[in-house]
Amino acid sequence: MKTSKEINIDKNNPFGAEILCIGSELLLGNIVNTNSQWIAEQLAILGIPHFRQTVIGDNPARLKEAILESSNRSQILITTGGLGPTPDDITTKIIADTFNTPLEQRNDILIELKNKMKNRVRKLSESQKKQSFVPKGAKIINNYSGTAPGIIWSPKKNFTILTFPGVPSELKEMWVKEASKWLISNNFSKEIITSKVLNFAGISESLLADKIPHLLKASNPTVATYASTGEVKIRITAKGDNVKQNNRSIKPIEEELTQITGLKCFSTDNTTLEEVVIKLLLNRKETIAVAESCTGGGVGSKLTKIPGSSKIFQGGIIAYNNLIKQRILGVPEELINTHGAVSKEVVESMARGVQKIFKVNWAVSVSGIAGPTGGSELKPVGLVNFCIKGPKTLITWEERFGSNKTREDIQKLSVLNALDRLRLSIIFKD
Amino acid sequence: MKTSKEINIDKNNPFGAEILCIGSELLLGNIVNTNSQWIAEQLAILGIPHFRQTVIGDNPARLKEAILESSNRSQILITTGGLGPTPDDITTKIIADTFNTPLEQRNDILIELKNKMKNRVRKLSESQKKQSFVPKGAKIINNYSGTAPGIIWSPKKNFTILTFPGVPSELKEMWVKEASKWLISNNFSKEIITSKVLNFAGISESLLADKIPHLLKASNPTVATYASTGEVKIRITAKGDNVKQNNRSIKPIEEELTQITGLKCFSTDNTTLEEVVIKLLLNRKETIAVAESCTGGGVGSKLTKIPGSSKIFQGGIIAYNNLIKQRILGVPEELINTHGAVSKEVVESMARGVQKIFKVNWAVSVSGIAGPTGGSELKPVGLVNFCIKGPKTLITWEERFGSNKTREDIQKLSVLNALDRLRLSIIFKD
Repeated sequence: MKTSKEINIDKNNPFGAEILCIGSELLLGNIVNTNSQWIAEQLAILGIPHFRQTVIGDNPARLKEAILESSNRSQILITTGGLGPTPDDITTKIIADTFNTPLEQRNDILIELKNKMKNRVRKLSESQKKQSFVPKGAKIINNYSGTAPGIIWSPKKNFTILTFPGVPSELKEMWVKEASKWLISNNFSKEIITSKVLNFAGISESLLADKIPHLLKASNPTVATYASTGEVKIRITAKGDNVKQNNRSIKPIEEELTQITGLKCFSTDNTTLEEVVIKLLLNRKETIAVAESCTGGGVGSKLTKIPGSSKIFQGGIIAYNNLIKQRILGVPEELINTHGAVSKEVVESMARGVQKIFKVNWAVSVSGIAGPTGGSELKPVGLVNFCIKGPKTLITWEERFGSNKTREDIQKLSVLNALDRLRLSIIFKD
Repeated sequence: MKTSKEINIDKNNPFGAEILCIGSELLLGNIVNTNSQWIAEQLAILGIPHFRQTVIGDNPARLKEAILESSNRSQILITTGGLGPTPDDITTKIIADTFNTPLEQRNDILIELKNKMKNRVRKLSESQKKQSFVPKGAKIINNYSGTAPGIIWSPKKNFTILTFPGVPSELKEMWVKEASKWLISNNFSKEIITSKVLNFAGISESLLADKIPHLLKASNPTVATYASTGEVKIRITAKGDNVKQNNRSIKPIEEELTQITGLKCFSTDNTTLEEVVIKLLLNRKETIAVAESCTGGGVGSKLTKIPGSSKIFQGGIIAYNNLIKQRILGVPEELINTHGAVSKEVVESMARGVQKIFKVNWAVSVSGIAGPTGGSELKPVGLVNFCIKGPKTLITWEERFGSNKTREDIQKLSVLNALDRLRLSIIFKD
């Protein structure tokens, strides 16, 4: 919970922004409303005050009512959803109706839609054509990866509506490339909020919080911790007149935090663990390959998500089966028989094998029991062994993530753990 | 997107339930509002109509306004958040203020709070005592794992407020153990809602919608389509007196849908594409391996997410580098030189290679240009080649996902596409 010094309501002076998410699937609880959170975060970054979020189903009368209410309270209404081609996509039409404005078909949108379809060798259907109609006078927000464009439209004085599709990736791209720039250049961005995120690995949220009680109590900048499976973040947030001033007040806090946490902090610019690893290797012009058992390609898949990874990531062996560990990676049969596939001896042999086959500087191997079955008292579900073999490095270790964890969590934690130790190994090598 | 035949607004006859989530952290975008989704789902299960969700910060005037509005529209208001001991936890006080009712300290809550504290060897602070105050006449919802209890209170005729803490686990336990029973025994549970989800691959949402315009217009059951990157779903939702009756009305619609869409529908019980593939192979006792370039282990990683996959998934080669394609998979150098690494010839050779090495029944190979760089006019970003080699099957194909797509989307679409064609290949083999 956070104490906020919100400005109170003044019916004669609508102020700030509201978010309106449209879709009966939200009312039925079919999906979680991640769009609200993302937009709220973006508004905070831009310093646009934001006081209310609403969810309404695909119902014309209720939608109209919500839009009208908002137009009497706020300066900006941001909507998501209901821009698609199906009959229940009613957002644009209802917005126009609410302010008694006709829809007009826009030829530029029509051409754009046709171009998008051409790539897919398909014709424009009647329902797709619907997406080319907008209220008279509206400005378009281009949709780069999907078909439905959004609009920026001021139906009355001191009130502007911005519409976005419900598909998160489309919404985000449209926001970043066009809407946020429009909001800044039209002076909606007030008290500037600047925040900086520090990313941590190899430490729990509560351990981290225990190290910095004095910082968690601070007011401007504020310091807050966040956690999800295997990942911990700290956000430093400053409010002020400009970014420069905010950055000046964030800097000493950031320095204190990195001083206290050392190498547990792997990035201060929101880069991911896999990005950090790829960058470290690119700088050193060193190559890498993986030998994965229980993660089934998860480490490789993470590394290849990063553009440019092809320069240093050579590939790997997914050795899910023990025979494959022997035949392809050259793990001796007696090693598996003596120590079991989930053992330090076997992961070391896997890493040596893949390093040799792929002729790489670095090799990472993982073998564990992801569950839900396959565990024993000695080797329970959640036990995972790892090895990192580098130019001068050889480390093997085991983790016990706990047999209460799901298969998916154990796989995710294994991938993160492997990447984090790889990061440290590369750093310590020098 | 969903066509809903919602009951329209009647100001003289408030109806249904609303959810009001309270907390400035939601407006700042610090957390995703999963509580709304969970409660919405529970309301749907109970058959309680639900038309609006609102988020408000810890601001007295705005909160009061939202409560008042809701009391004129709905019969039930469910709130989350703001019940804790800190100064910004204002929910109970503001609810009482809104309806000009005094708060009273309840001895039963005080005793309960002291008991809870005793376990933790702590004394009750003044701020904790705050949690023992409720509006005069309110019924208590016990909090089993946390301290702050909720209330059930009817401040006016035909309007009841139920409050819950913001901590999801506490809220859920209080709902299941007390609130849902109260809602049922007080006859708020109207029509039971039953829904069934059909999953599709290899078809776009708009193409699917164009095939079933008559079904999308239906009222009970309703039929709605949903889409995210590469995935399309249809939800059939029936309202009725009991589950049996609902299932009876869902069945003919489901049959018509599967008739129209054929094999594009891969599951009617919400199982994922990778689960379907693993099941098909387990039934046939046939094994599989993968040879992945641009997906970097993504196909293997998906397959190993499924418990029991180790019985049939043998592993694979992540051949990110062309030399590896040659050295390990045995792709002839001249094939790569003549046709390029992203070609039907090379994916066929990759699939043959991995099938031989892993001695498996089925092999899947993927090679493409995930971008953002590496594309050319002839072979643009988004071009991906695939091969499936089975006991009697050999298919190669290419997809052009579009160079406007992100690297992550291209990788995700490639994995889905490979899994879907694999599913069809296994089915058609017989």
